[in-house]
Amino acid sequence: MALERSSAALQRTHLPHGVADYFWTEARERRLLEARLLELFRSWGYGDVIPPMFEYAETYHARAGSELESEVYRFLDRDGSTLALRADMTIPVARLVATRLHDCAMPQRFCYAGSVFRYTEPQAGLQREFAQAGIELIGSRSPQADAEVMALTARALQAAAISQFKLVVGQMQFFDGLLEALNLAPDRSRALQRAIDRNSHADLLEFLRTVSLPEAHRRAVEEMPLLSGPEVDAVINRAEKVCLNAGMHNALNNLRAVADNLDAYGEAGRLYIDLTEIHNLGYYTGITFEALTPELGFAVAGGGRYDNLVASFGADQPAVGAALTSERLLLARRRTEPARSATHPASPDVLFGIAPEAVSLKSIMPIVQDWRSRRLSVAIDVDGLVDDALLEFGRVTGAQYCIRWTDEGAVVTAMNQTASASRFVPASQMDQLATEILNAISSAD
Amino acid sequence: MALERSSAALQRTHLPHGVADYFWTEARERRLLEARLLELFRSWGYGDVIPPMFEYAETYHARAGSELESEVYRFLDRDGSTLALRADMTIPVARLVATRLHDCAMPQRFCYAGSVFRYTEPQAGLQREFAQAGIELIGSRSPQADAEVMALTARALQAAAISQFKLVVGQMQFFDGLLEALNLAPDRSRALQRAIDRNSHADLLEFLRTVSLPEAHRRAVEEMPLLSGPEVDAVINRAEKVCLNAGMHNALNNLRAVADNLDAYGEAGRLYIDLTEIHNLGYYTGITFEALTPELGFAVAGGGRYDNLVASFGADQPAVGAALTSERLLLARRRTEPARSATHPASPDVLFGIAPEAVSLKSIMPIVQDWRSRRLSVAIDVDGLVDDALLEFGRVTGAQYCIRWTDEGAVVTAMNQTASASRFVPASQMDQLATEILNAISSAD
Repeated sequence: MALERSSAALQRTHLPHGVADYFWTEARERRLLEARLLELFRSWGYGDVIPPMFEYAETYHARAGSELESEVYRFLDRDGSTLALRADMTIPVARLVATRLHDCAMPQRFCYAGSVFRYTEPQAGLQREFAQAGIELIGSRSPQADAEVMALTARALQAAAISQFKLVVGQMQFFDGLLEALNLAPDRSRALQRAIDRNSHADLLEFLRTVSLPEAHRRAVEEMPLLSGPEVDAVINRAEKVCLNAGMHNALNNLRAVADNLDAYGEAGRLYIDLTEIHNLGYYTGITFEALTPELGFAVAGGGRYDNLVASFGADQPAVGAALTSERLLLARRRTEPARSATHPASPDVLFGIAPEAVSLKSIMPIVQDWRSRRLSVAIDVDGLVDDALLEFGRVTGAQYCIRWTDEGAVVTAMNQTASASRFVPASQMDQLATEILNAISSAD
Repeated sequence: MALERSSAALQRTHLPHGVADYFWTEARERRLLEARLLELFRSWGYGDVIPPMFEYAETYHARAGSELESEVYRFLDRDGSTLALRADMTIPVARLVATRLHDCAMPQRFCYAGSVFRYTEPQAGLQREFAQAGIELIGSRSPQADAEVMALTARALQAAAISQFKLVVGQMQFFDGLLEALNLAPDRSRALQRAIDRNSHADLLEFLRTVSLPEAHRRAVEEMPLLSGPEVDAVINRAEKVCLNAGMHNALNNLRAVADNLDAYGEAGRLYIDLTEIHNLGYYTGITFEALTPELGFAVAGGGRYDNLVASFGADQPAVGAALTSERLLLARRRTEPARSATHPASPDVLFGIAPEAVSLKSIMPIVQDWRSRRLSVAIDVDGLVDDALLEFGRVTGAQYCIRWTDEGAVVTAMNQTASASRFVPASQMDQLATEILNAISSAD
């Protein structure tokens, strides 16, 4: 296409670092993806929610983890209060349920799609403004609820044409239980957390050198980095052997129940247990998970259980949720389908032109409207282009067909064939022509 | 419905003045409306565009009119530059075309839906954050382009189930031509503008008392307040009589051509010409229009021609566009259909429960997935509810059917009938059951 261009590759003139214009097919794909995901979520009984794009910064304070909190865009309202751009969807939905919907029957299911804002260095598919689509299931503590959210995340990835992915699952309570058993000084606790989070063997050895631990405790710490793998039972059984208290046992029982339930959805084969996965947004309290596309090397979705977040706004409700990063889903798809890699104008199926001496716009309007209602996209020339000028405009905008109206009917040119392949179709056969064009277009897709 | 509530009526706890949560059916209606409008726009050959939610404040400076500019939300980026939340869509799209798409074939058609932010006192259907859906046709100067944008706006209103509306059309060049002919001192020019804009007879008399004008000029000023009405030819003919220069004549010729073209779309009957309509967003240069729903008393859409805006960013391109205010469309519809006036949970069509002693989740999952793919929304109980507890949960969440799985099949309860209307359906007849439920639901709609 003459007009192809990658909006990612072009210089982002006149725009601040971290935001971008999306346009043409790239914007359309994002819209259609979000619409498809919302439709899927609704079919599982999830209801739409649209939180405001900004609210009091206080809403995020002490609820987002320190990393997320440091990334919140804050600004002053004219009345002096501090506002924050939406930094995630989970915190606003938790606020909504706790303050306004707490007397409704539980559980409640919500789904959303929209922009969130984080002050970070832009990465592939992750600008400072980026779009998320996701779900929250609020009011149930059961592993069935965890499994439903993970299974629906998996279905959403498939709906986005992502088939190769793993669900990497952690359980915050396991490490929390370990910390409780070890009863460390705060700086030692942080050192251990850092070593596990960074997956650093050297840091872990250094940590063990600086603390004096009973044998069973030491063995549990040494075992931590090994508690991951695709074989759910094997990892959980290994972890069982180093459990030090009920918290760690409960974590493993929950993981086992989630895996069993996920098996009912046919998604258990995607699981990769990772008990060292302790990095989170600050509010997770149970299972956490990320969907990784190994060949692409980044997470396209993530989520987890957050049983204390809703209560921090008022009513106490357990909850679990997940979010998919729309732009990353599209990026993953584009990398596997290179033909999608460049954005190009949303070409009309048909470009209509009217010979100036010919029939009036009014007389052909019923035909155009009929074609549009049959899901053909029809652009009408508004500049009085004739003959070659019309064909040239149709060519550069990527129209599939050009139709020039005359007194007796239409001169039809199929643009994907040689330019000379024009033919005359009488006005009485416009209905058949539409059918023919619809068939040609759908068979070319 | 036990759970009905109006999100507008409820106290907006924990949220800044001017923003709101949208949820349940209210949020869903907004999503579906936006999807429907975008689909309509695409069928006319318009391509999606998604401008960033914020950009440099400078983008709006001297381009928005002084009123809009005073309403822009500004804040500091961490690098010290001043950013602005998106205050309209037209200015960012003009920037995009002028800076990145100026070498593409013209005209280009764009459509969008999303939030804009203006620091104003909230009104009915117009919070400080409000959603717009709209179109921009860039690169054509023709009245056909003006008419296309107005006709598509009218079709969009009809797609939003708004049938009673007028298109009130002004033409900036008429008043601009008058001002040019009068050649007033700046303060007198402002006084005249204010008198016309406010439609104040007293202010106009006061203005005429303070200036000395040739007879033809005085007559043109006196005639201004009368140049409005639903009879297009009559108003234009009256206006012709007081034209003082080519600018005023051109304005009327353009209006006449737009009205003629609009007639081709069957929308000319909605026209109400108003040459006193000189209030605008700061960038309109030709026709301006508003769609008014008389029984509601507010504009649900507006637009106009802005031939200088794109050039202010670089490449010189004429343009015309329109925006619809999504929430106002929904509000207008709710006022004519009172049943829609309250939001309620997005009820699943079917609530599935599984008797604990019965078949596994895994064995019924293929059925559930099949039903979901047939566009039934199916929620699965995740809390092990049995018997009456499941039915009660189905009732309060508004499920149409509750299905309790047992070893042999399903106990089906149609919730809109008496609670005792349960019956047993064997597992072999699930397909027929889905068809029956689909038929019952679609006939109830």
